[in-house]
Amino acid sequence: MDFRASDFVCPNFRAAGVACGIKGDKALDLALIVSDNPTNAAAVFTKNRVKAAPVILAMRRIDETSPRAVLLNSGNANACTGKEGIGDAEAVTGKAAEILGISDGEVIPASTGVIGARLPVDKIKVSIKDLCYALSPDGFLDAARAIMTTDTFPKLAKRKFQIGGKECTLLGIAKGAGMICPDMATMLAVAVTDAPTKGAFLKNALKDAVDSSFNAITIDGDMSTNDMVLLISSPNRNEVKGGMNSEGEAVFFENLRDLLGELAEMIVKDGEGATKFVRVTVKGAPDKGLAKGTALKVANSPLVKTAFFGQDPNWGRIMAKVGCVEGDFDPQIVDISIGDVPLVLNGKSTGNSNEERAKVLMGRPEFSINIDLKAGDSSFTVLTSDLSLDYVKINAEYRS
Amino acid sequence: MDFRASDFVCPNFRAAGVACGIKGDKALDLALIVSDNPTNAAAVFTKNRVKAAPVILAMRRIDETSPRAVLLNSGNANACTGKEGIGDAEAVTGKAAEILGISDGEVIPASTGVIGARLPVDKIKVSIKDLCYALSPDGFLDAARAIMTTDTFPKLAKRKFQIGGKECTLLGIAKGAGMICPDMATMLAVAVTDAPTKGAFLKNALKDAVDSSFNAITIDGDMSTNDMVLLISSPNRNEVKGGMNSEGEAVFFENLRDLLGELAEMIVKDGEGATKFVRVTVKGAPDKGLAKGTALKVANSPLVKTAFFGQDPNWGRIMAKVGCVEGDFDPQIVDISIGDVPLVLNGKSTGNSNEERAKVLMGRPEFSINIDLKAGDSSFTVLTSDLSLDYVKINAEYRS
Repeated sequence: MDFRASDFVCPNFRAAGVACGIKGDKALDLALIVSDNPTNAAAVFTKNRVKAAPVILAMRRIDETSPRAVLLNSGNANACTGKEGIGDAEAVTGKAAEILGISDGEVIPASTGVIGARLPVDKIKVSIKDLCYALSPDGFLDAARAIMTTDTFPKLAKRKFQIGGKECTLLGIAKGAGMICPDMATMLAVAVTDAPTKGAFLKNALKDAVDSSFNAITIDGDMSTNDMVLLISSPNRNEVKGGMNSEGEAVFFENLRDLLGELAEMIVKDGEGATKFVRVTVKGAPDKGLAKGTALKVANSPLVKTAFFGQDPNWGRIMAKVGCVEGDFDPQIVDISIGDVPLVLNGKSTGNSNEERAKVLMGRPEFSINIDLKAGDSSFTVLTSDLSLDYVKINAEYRS
Repeated sequence: MDFRASDFVCPNFRAAGVACGIKGDKALDLALIVSDNPTNAAAVFTKNRVKAAPVILAMRRIDETSPRAVLLNSGNANACTGKEGIGDAEAVTGKAAEILGISDGEVIPASTGVIGARLPVDKIKVSIKDLCYALSPDGFLDAARAIMTTDTFPKLAKRKFQIGGKECTLLGIAKGAGMICPDMATMLAVAVTDAPTKGAFLKNALKDAVDSSFNAITIDGDMSTNDMVLLISSPNRNEVKGGMNSEGEAVFFENLRDLLGELAEMIVKDGEGATKFVRVTVKGAPDKGLAKGTALKVANSPLVKTAFFGQDPNWGRIMAKVGCVEGDFDPQIVDISIGDVPLVLNGKSTGNSNEERAKVLMGRPEFSINIDLKAGDSSFTVLTSDLSLDYVKINAEYRS
């Protein structure tokens, strides 16, 4: 993907990314995003009971005040580091606050990388001055690069839309996860906007948008120690806060959902070693929870994922996973198709010629699996990748 | 492993394995085990809601009568084949019953292999005569070979013990699963004994022994369409059935548990592409269910399993999985060790020199992971393997 820094600008925000030496070889590893105005903000945090120090601190700060800055680093997760880890996160955000002339609590920390090692506080503190000098409206591309770990490309997306006659921008950056399903490594995303949003609306909008985007590429409650999605709104100072009517809120929400969806797709496509991008849709479910649960079960099966890699329309492995799901449907009568090719009707094979057609479809980099439970009107789509030889190579060698 | 056929004999039973052409290249693919006497029997079947035809038929028959024979094939699972599949299983077992001179209901069918294809009934029927002629007391090795799919070696185990002054034998064969956790392919096991057991005792003994052996290498409710464990007791005709006292039952149970445990270990060691055999023990849990659930969560994580393959003492990935488990313990204060090397104490790293020692331990083909939740007295051990490059190769290419 070929990004241009000047395409990723959001009024009232500046950003930067520098190399402070955590990752070595001069790779960018420290990022800062700053709002020039007071903000509204919302966040979604990992449900993992082992929370990294920056997550603990971020949860506290976002409850207490409106953030003016986000300080992110890669190469070190500052997780499983105890009270010292909290102190380290306070030290580096405190340094940023000092230089920016804001209070400590207004800086949100975020980290991703190796678990268990202490944050190299001195290295980071030395570089924060450079980082602040480097802040610029078109610094988001550098910031996106600075939070990469095993990502092969930076992840940015942008939307422009009108609210009450005014043009608004929504801009997001994210870093990918090791393996998206079922074992999300660290997923970080920050979205910024100049739309004049209300606090309560912002919280609900973020939660709903995350449910249909980032939470459709992972398992509930099975997240890493560091996952965090932040949404910061910085309206112009002369605009009344909360100046959006319900029509404006609807426009904003659709754009937010679409933006996070695009970032989520990028994360799956950049999944470690991924050679296939697969949409697993379960329809005809008695409720949405069952549709989602079934889709995740299929999408997370190593046997199914290796069949994706092998381009093998192995519907037997899919049937076996569907049969493991408890719920008010009969697994023996389901339909399964790959793209528009029916492989299973009423629980039975449609024959070899369809398998040959499906095999051709699976040769493409993207395809879909569709499962009809025939027991209701609910559906859910999960995005996933295959389980490839490179996935194993990367994760046997990389220390995450 | 080097087995001798004459080492695997159990009084009152004969067995055989032949090549009937399902698998091609003259590989053994059809097996028969026959009791010369009336029997007691017990069975544990897959919990998958999609049950293969032989499973449905076996469940019905074992409820109605005592089996005299088991007819097993590999290369075709006879699963997702509808009513026709049931008819096919009836046809082949009927042929065996006819030649053996017993009733159809006394023959238990079992199949493993590709899902969705019809059983080649004619090929099998033609070979059943040869199979019956080949029956002999030392035919269990051939039978074990005939149920292999991606197994690289046949799996047999035997125990001898005294009950009431009489020497008894317990003999078992099994076939391995594709990936043991979390996605058991087909696991089949048949154990036979000449010990004089009662029916009710046999059922309970099998269930308890399976819980601590085969069910410690898979996830409850997440089994294949064809999994089945059969235990058949064929006492001498002159012995009173149920002639075992409670002391004898205790001896029998211990031997059964040990035998099934040995077969379960063989299955893990022969896991597809496995280069490591790992015991994951969770102790200090408030109850056994939580100990087992936590151990399975760790043992099933692709990130943890690739770290096993890479010989990387990556305790951060283990901590992240423990943190996803809901329960009455504090994941932030757990201890984690590899073998006797403590890596994490009270949720924090013990330092690099211990990691170096652990790395050396992980170079061995077998090692253990120990997790202490410090919240109770319950423990559970799960056996697992690593996730290797060969696992992906095998499952991307093999149609199971």
